[in-house]
Amino acid sequence: MQVLKTIEELQEVRKNITGTVGFVPTMGALHNGHISLIKQARNENEVVIVSIFVNPTQFLPGEDLDAYPRKDEADKRICEMCKVDYVFMPEISTMYGKEEVLIKAPNKSYILEGKTRPGHFDGVLRVVLKLFNLTQPTNAYFGKKDAQQLSLITQMVKDLFLPINIVPCEIIREDDGLALSSRNVYLDPTQRVDALLISKSLYMAGSLIASGERSVEAVKNKVYEIMKTLDVEYVAIVDREFNELKTIEPKNTIILVVARFGNTRLLDNIWL
Amino acid sequence: MQVLKTIEELQEVRKNITGTVGFVPTMGALHNGHISLIKQARNENEVVIVSIFVNPTQFLPGEDLDAYPRKDEADKRICEMCKVDYVFMPEISTMYGKEEVLIKAPNKSYILEGKTRPGHFDGVLRVVLKLFNLTQPTNAYFGKKDAQQLSLITQMVKDLFLPINIVPCEIIREDDGLALSSRNVYLDPTQRVDALLISKSLYMAGSLIASGERSVEAVKNKVYEIMKTLDVEYVAIVDREFNELKTIEPKNTIILVVARFGNTRLLDNIWL
Repeated sequence: MQVLKTIEELQEVRKNITGTVGFVPTMGALHNGHISLIKQARNENEVVIVSIFVNPTQFLPGEDLDAYPRKDEADKRICEMCKVDYVFMPEISTMYGKEEVLIKAPNKSYILEGKTRPGHFDGVLRVVLKLFNLTQPTNAYFGKKDAQQLSLITQMVKDLFLPINIVPCEIIREDDGLALSSRNVYLDPTQRVDALLISKSLYMAGSLIASGERSVEAVKNKVYEIMKTLDVEYVAIVDREFNELKTIEPKNTIILVVARFGNTRLLDNIWL
Repeated sequence: MQVLKTIEELQEVRKNITGTVGFVPTMGALHNGHISLIKQARNENEVVIVSIFVNPTQFLPGEDLDAYPRKDEADKRICEMCKVDYVFMPEISTMYGKEEVLIKAPNKSYILEGKTRPGHFDGVLRVVLKLFNLTQPTNAYFGKKDAQQLSLITQMVKDLFLPINIVPCEIIREDDGLALSSRNVYLDPTQRVDALLISKSLYMAGSLIASGERSVEAVKNKVYEIMKTLDVEYVAIVDREFNELKTIEPKNTIILVVARFGNTRLLDNIWL
């Protein structure tokens, strides 16, 4: 495995790859969620590139950019064990200049996650586009956990005619149901127990729909009821393109939940 | 020569090209300026792709989008004579969807051309990025005549890490000095004669600098003096990155002029 730090190193490496390239962009602090993406990339491509970069442009002022967990050495060992070919770990000054050409996510980037974090997705698309241009992947792997991010990146690829296949990957959970997240380390033991209500509410919504319920209001009420002791930021029921649904559409429904535990926001969702 | 209309046709063609690709994006109404770009692309690449697309997103409301000269059949014949391999001529609905991920040019896109045409360069960068992603050129050819456009495209390539070499090409002129432009057809015979003062003012500025003048003000005064009978929109003296110069810097100076003839704006410049 080779660790690359500069644009020139990565471009030189990429120029000499002729086979399929699987790319997994991450902010490090790798957990089993990331590992499942990397393993899938390893299975489906001749060459695997993982990037580890805590991207400042997707954090808003006052967010946890400085506190965001950094585990470079552990991350490298994990990549090595997963038989990654190249890890790209650039500095901020490598990725960004002073006054740059920017990416503007569409209006629907300002609902849900974008409502609490305005401009967040501009930063996400900006760094992902840069990384796509550098790595020129055949396949790029993103978790369904960040569902709105996945939707906007898929749209960017389509709008800009990027010759890249976006592969949505299943959410990986602890045995008790909590969706894996690098931010779970922020939870204290009580919060960690309370957080189980998030996935529980989504499972209950899923079985309600499986039993024939098609009312968005009824499903939302159920989700809120289960999480009634939590500080819920939003519950949303949307289609695959993030348009709000009026009626549950089987195979075209995503239920999204965000709950706050002190300063920590936990996201979860279920695709039905 | 093959004429391609759809994204799918172009992507299919591009996938099967292994050699170097020279790309010349145009809005059609091809003249000797375009032809010189195409010939250079032909000399320097194994495959040449020309796009012909009057891009609506770079026109502001009230500008000449509808009147812009369209000469599809003549353009195709010219491309054929220049031994172009592929001409890409998409419809607007092929290039654009409804609510898209956008490109935001940096602040310096709002001076000079961008001051009169705010948002113009956002549209230019947007279509060029789409075309770059479709054609994935080794080399892309742009005229120095649209100097600010050339500068911003060069910056976009750098900022987004696109693996593309931007080739700046010399301005092509009529024998009497008028810089070629698809918009020259809008000029009446009197305007056509008056327009010669533009290139004349630039030549005079060039010889003033050659004789040792380093004062920006003196050079500007000379340019304005020669064009005093014209409706001059701006005269600007900038470096290669479009920062305004305080003193003439040999080999790092561009003098830009825009003059209006009725509704027609004529651009010209000289690189010193």
